[in-house]
Amino acid sequence: MKHIKHPTPLINQSICQANIRRMAEKAHLNSAALRPHFKTHQSAAVGDWYRQAGISGITVSSARMAKAFAEAGWKNITIAFPANILEAELLNELAAAIELRLFINSPETARALKEQLQHPVKFYIEIDTGQRRSGLHPEAYATIDAILAEARLEARQSELLHFHGFYTHPGHSYATQTLAQVTALYEDVLSYLLPLKERYAPQYPDLKLSAGDTPGSVRVEDLQEFDELTPGNFAFFDMQQLHKGVCSWQDIALAMACPVVDVYPDRNEAIIYGGAVHFSKDFYLQSDGSQSFGQLVWLQDSGWSKPVEGAYLKALSQEHGVLSAPDEIINELRPGQLLGFLPAHSCLTANLSPSLYNISSKNSLQTIAIL
Amino acid sequence: MKHIKHPTPLINQSICQANIRRMAEKAHLNSAALRPHFKTHQSAAVGDWYRQAGISGITVSSARMAKAFAEAGWKNITIAFPANILEAELLNELAAAIELRLFINSPETARALKEQLQHPVKFYIEIDTGQRRSGLHPEAYATIDAILAEARLEARQSELLHFHGFYTHPGHSYATQTLAQVTALYEDVLSYLLPLKERYAPQYPDLKLSAGDTPGSVRVEDLQEFDELTPGNFAFFDMQQLHKGVCSWQDIALAMACPVVDVYPDRNEAIIYGGAVHFSKDFYLQSDGSQSFGQLVWLQDSGWSKPVEGAYLKALSQEHGVLSAPDEIINELRPGQLLGFLPAHSCLTANLSPSLYNISSKNSLQTIAIL
Repeated sequence: MKHIKHPTPLINQSICQANIRRMAEKAHLNSAALRPHFKTHQSAAVGDWYRQAGISGITVSSARMAKAFAEAGWKNITIAFPANILEAELLNELAAAIELRLFINSPETARALKEQLQHPVKFYIEIDTGQRRSGLHPEAYATIDAILAEARLEARQSELLHFHGFYTHPGHSYATQTLAQVTALYEDVLSYLLPLKERYAPQYPDLKLSAGDTPGSVRVEDLQEFDELTPGNFAFFDMQQLHKGVCSWQDIALAMACPVVDVYPDRNEAIIYGGAVHFSKDFYLQSDGSQSFGQLVWLQDSGWSKPVEGAYLKALSQEHGVLSAPDEIINELRPGQLLGFLPAHSCLTANLSPSLYNISSKNSLQTIAIL
Repeated sequence: MKHIKHPTPLINQSICQANIRRMAEKAHLNSAALRPHFKTHQSAAVGDWYRQAGISGITVSSARMAKAFAEAGWKNITIAFPANILEAELLNELAAAIELRLFINSPETARALKEQLQHPVKFYIEIDTGQRRSGLHPEAYATIDAILAEARLEARQSELLHFHGFYTHPGHSYATQTLAQVTALYEDVLSYLLPLKERYAPQYPDLKLSAGDTPGSVRVEDLQEFDELTPGNFAFFDMQQLHKGVCSWQDIALAMACPVVDVYPDRNEAIIYGGAVHFSKDFYLQSDGSQSFGQLVWLQDSGWSKPVEGAYLKALSQEHGVLSAPDEIINELRPGQLLGFLPAHSCLTANLSPSLYNISSKNSLQTIAIL
């Protein structure tokens, strides 16, 4: 890695492909379609690894990201975000070219799309099963009925808006620690979704249930009730997931390589070139309650070591990272040394870089540009 | 702003230019050179507004950012970050083309630069006056002497590394609230810097004192002891600054325009298209202790309203923002409406966008690409 001069996300291809394979097998065992979330990596090359694992339908978080992956050859894309009617023109372009799936969470949105789209789309109604982000209350039947009524009353074209099913993002799973907790949370999620399915199945016998945060998709054993799973983070994992027991350090496929620029043994700290514009400001709380923005690992030719105990990024500003570590570590550091860090949140870290460096193939993998 | 379809940073040029003018006047009154930090805006067009205010020397946070602004015509640039010796080749290229100023905080870095640079640079030694980020302890005389000795012992060329003075970033000013607190903090800073100046002036009679966080540069009245000021955020300001009393809302020159996608009156919340990849995950604490990632304003043709009381972004995920607001606000919102938000931290927000939209000239201002 001698050519790395500035903060650079490293990808371990074998770990990433193993993560993908494991999740594809789990989805298969549960008779669910894996539609992985591509916001995690935003890379056409990582997308190809999914293709090799038999994946054909994917999930993204914006219309512009859908466009980038449609251009990379993906023909079946869910935009897992409440449809933004201001982008109707772009949605229409996409709907002309691929199988496009949207979230429609209000009759107003259904009406606006129906007026502005010329090409058919599938849509989910998103249900809030506890995260309190987007999604309707599981008993908001009047709103659900109004959305479905709007979709049926299609003036210009039948089947312009085709109801595909209910989607939920159980993102509150990120607050769970144990397998028992996340399993109970998923039972709770199903206690909201199954009655909805029962209620609407007579009219929509093919309706699907779709979900997929990484902690739940990885840890919960029985996912048979779900027709589709849409996790993303599991491809890379990160310290937030490790800290919650979702993965082991050997499963983490992304590390940041950052140069040491200053060493301050008197305060057990070193400054690295690597800040909020490289890692993001996301963090996790360590066992002692302190914030960490990333954990030190030693870089090796073809990967990195296990996490170095007690050595973590205690603070980030725009381009500075403050590494706190025990004496015996700090005393060995020198300016110009390249260190590895497992980031708190790999999705936001990967988002910040124009490319990911594949340490297995020694290639730079460009990430898509969202312009 | 009818053409805005997705999260877009808006710049009010007149406010920004007034902020620049005010700081240039203050620096002038204090006989200090204003060398503004360009990491805040990362835009050649905003750079031009500084040029119009008579600025010729600037500050950036990385060698790659220096390169981008050198290409935009800036001939005198400080990289306000501990010199990264892995980028010696790039530093050498820059030193050949412009007056380049670096931070050298260790004899090892001095030695490595001296071996690898062919063109002269000026350097500061950075002093930690309380922030505990980069910078030497104010009494680390042995290290300072060793750096200066390395710089003098130049084998190949005299004056390759020219000692310019001491730099400090009093970033702990961000924890102050009152004018008295930040004034006392600056007295403290000078109590570290002035003895250093006195100690090294006999050998280096021209040595400069350089500093410049936004809270201090804006609020502290007497800055006569400083030769150079390097704040950046003041050009845009943001809610973190407003909340600390550093600016008024009328001084904030950057707002994010974000579409409403879902409205949930039953929980007094709406979902906007605008998340961590647009705002960053930086936040501030409101008076009641709750986190805010941005404050609602109403967009107007040529600007935006005062902050809407009680209406703020309570949570951000990758692309979702959760707006919490009183009944009477939430009940009026509709999907497809464009809202304005004053961000928590304008530097990190601007960093995330490939362009800034100038609402005064109706032009999109490209930001530099750090590749």
